[in-house]
Amino acid sequence: MTTGTVRNGIDVDQLVGTINAIKDDHRLAAFTWRAKSVWEQGTHSTGEIGRFIHNGAEDTTRTRAFVLQGDEPPVLLGENAGPNAVELLLQALAFCYAVGYVANAAARGIEISSMEYEIEGDFDVRRFLGLDGPRSGFTEIRAHARVSSPNTTTADLEELFRYVQDTSPVRDALANPTTVISTLEVVGDRVEKVNT
Amino acid sequence: MTTGTVRNGIDVDQLVGTINAIKDDHRLAAFTWRAKSVWEQGTHSTGEIGRFIHNGAEDTTRTRAFVLQGDEPPVLLGENAGPNAVELLLQALAFCYAVGYVANAAARGIEISSMEYEIEGDFDVRRFLGLDGPRSGFTEIRAHARVSSPNTTTADLEELFRYVQDTSPVRDALANPTTVISTLEVVGDRVEKVNT
Repeated sequence: MTTGTVRNGIDVDQLVGTINAIKDDHRLAAFTWRAKSVWEQGTHSTGEIGRFIHNGAEDTTRTRAFVLQGDEPPVLLGENAGPNAVELLLQALAFCYAVGYVANAAARGIEISSMEYEIEGDFDVRRFLGLDGPRSGFTEIRAHARVSSPNTTTADLEELFRYVQDTSPVRDALANPTTVISTLEVVGDRVEKVNT
Repeated sequence: MTTGTVRNGIDVDQLVGTINAIKDDHRLAAFTWRAKSVWEQGTHSTGEIGRFIHNGAEDTTRTRAFVLQGDEPPVLLGENAGPNAVELLLQALAFCYAVGYVANAAARGIEISSMEYEIEGDFDVRRFLGLDGPRSGFTEIRAHARVSSPNTTTADLEELFRYVQDTSPVRDALANPTTVISTLEVVGDRVEKVNT
């Protein structure tokens, strides 16, 4: 499976094999992804993305976790120790579109010479700061792709672009409502209010 | 403004000053955040988060961009050069919740001793691979926080937790539909189909 056709760096035989295996057993399509963070100081946290669950078992191919820094710029009380949360979300959209485009291009016989994404998102900080204002998330996200291919037409590249939008996990998570269940565990030091 | 009360590493006077300035001039609430990526090979792209726009002008406090790697694990045709896009999205939620919690705690006089987040998201890869299946984004995201404070009650920490959920920009972007406008520019080499 690893010595077959490779296009755009994608092993097309492995891709087709994966799709066929999932057709036969839907459990192979199931993933649980994870991320965690530890608060450092002020607006700065350190994040860690380690192992994930695939088909009920922990994947062991990552020998160590990816470490990320999250912070705000000074105008939002931070020190630029890392990008902020909403910037990471835009980065996630860029990465998602790129994987979708290159993998589907490979499956369709389209060679990609270059591919870049520029994402921007408009945002109003009022709700976050407890003031009346527009929604707290992005009011609009714009994604612009630049793609070149030596062996297909503009029309085919455009059709693939629409297909990738329709199947992109990050775009779907943003464009449609996603269930987010949040729970709090109070640990360590605490005080309990005394009735007075 | 920078020598006042600092709580949890947050300059409370600067925070209050920022809120008051925005009350007086809503344009100060407006941000456009950006991220870009360049495709490397296969499922691997390099991302860059640089300067952003605040109140119509580019913020210049970042002297260089943050660089991130995005990739897939081998089971999804990559080489683990970085986390994947949907993992980054979970990381963004962790960072967002942390900033919201610590800043609002500071404003309320609550000291935070420690704060951790663990996020996980269930996901089915079928739609991404062109098969029939559940939605392509997360079917459910779960966020678990662990917080300790030496000077407030569990009830106050819980109330703050609910407030932060309601005002979190990343949670809002996920839980509610966000407009995503995607455009493609075909550049460089190309072939145009000849009518045959």
